[in-house]
Amino acid sequence: MKLFDGGRAPNPRRVRVFLAEKGISVPLVPVDMGAMEHRGKDLISRNPLARLPVLELDDGTILCESVAICRYFEELQPEPALFGNSALGKAQVEMWQRRLELNFLFPVAQAFRHIHPAMKEWEVPQVPEWGEVNKPKALDFLALMDAELAQREFAAGDGFSIADITGLVALDFMKPARITIPEELTNVLRWYGALKARPSAAA
Amino acid sequence: MKLFDGGRAPNPRRVRVFLAEKGISVPLVPVDMGAMEHRGKDLISRNPLARLPVLELDDGTILCESVAICRYFEELQPEPALFGNSALGKAQVEMWQRRLELNFLFPVAQAFRHIHPAMKEWEVPQVPEWGEVNKPKALDFLALMDAELAQREFAAGDGFSIADITGLVALDFMKPARITIPEELTNVLRWYGALKARPSAAA
Repeated sequence: MKLFDGGRAPNPRRVRVFLAEKGISVPLVPVDMGAMEHRGKDLISRNPLARLPVLELDDGTILCESVAICRYFEELQPEPALFGNSALGKAQVEMWQRRLELNFLFPVAQAFRHIHPAMKEWEVPQVPEWGEVNKPKALDFLALMDAELAQREFAAGDGFSIADITGLVALDFMKPARITIPEELTNVLRWYGALKARPSAAA
Repeated sequence: MKLFDGGRAPNPRRVRVFLAEKGISVPLVPVDMGAMEHRGKDLISRNPLARLPVLELDDGTILCESVAICRYFEELQPEPALFGNSALGKAQVEMWQRRLELNFLFPVAQAFRHIHPAMKEWEVPQVPEWGEVNKPKALDFLALMDAELAQREFAAGDGFSIADITGLVALDFMKPARITIPEELTNVLRWYGALKARPSAAA
């Protein structure tokens, strides 16, 4: 198999961090998103949505969507479990993965894509008003997360999971989106520090 | 356990359709979203994001996020499998569930929430330009889906899955969002007809 990778963009990174946590090595095919290679023929033929990452299996089967690719590897190699254990544990990981993606990573990405001048060709049309509306949405969620993290070590419980990976890439993505983590969110800052200190964060 | 339900809104409906497909009965607590009951003390104490549905277990544990609630029931009662079988099958269901949610249900919901006058108190501030931008996004995805559905019966393969449930609620939601299914998308129309004909669609 091979993984078409998109460098620093949040979704390709989610899969690389996940694989690093699992200790799984997959051959990467670098795709230069800065040069718009993800909109080229090679990629579109594999993913008509022109998004990365894309996993191609040896028989040519294509898997897209970062979380779906991660789940495939979770099924192939269940340990360490990054989607939770037990019915309730799995549901709680799904709940926090979704909350972090939909209420945090997504608004951060919208602020970046609809405001940053470098995104003009990527997000057509940019709606700057929509970008601005998303900044307080991201910060509101981070305040909620801070209260949650006062009660436990990681996003979905006391064990590291894919929800934390989504949190890590979103926190890192705040910088290009020009949103600052409020310094009073001490639990979020502790969590962020712990995530950045894991070897997988370098993936 | 009990399920705090939100009537006609797409996410509460996703869980009800899922439960109907599984043949599982859960006591419902109706929450009148029209009267803004989901923003009341009772709900906020269970879900600070003020969203429905919310599942409360007998020990008081709370599960939010429709797909997380569905996964909980999938784990408790695996048959019929609505999240797929085999590593690849599960990943493909996740891929299409996500694609249908993020590229179809989400833009349809944005068009509704940012344009419809009835949503003025719900979506603050409404950004009508953003709502309009989402209509062609939803239709572009539906055209892609039509090509996919020329090759198979359901969204993620030849078996019904949670991806189809997301498709059903999104297709139904096009009406209040004032987006019309183009009549040339015959595969989508065939699929929609089949989904609406299942007894679970009445849930």
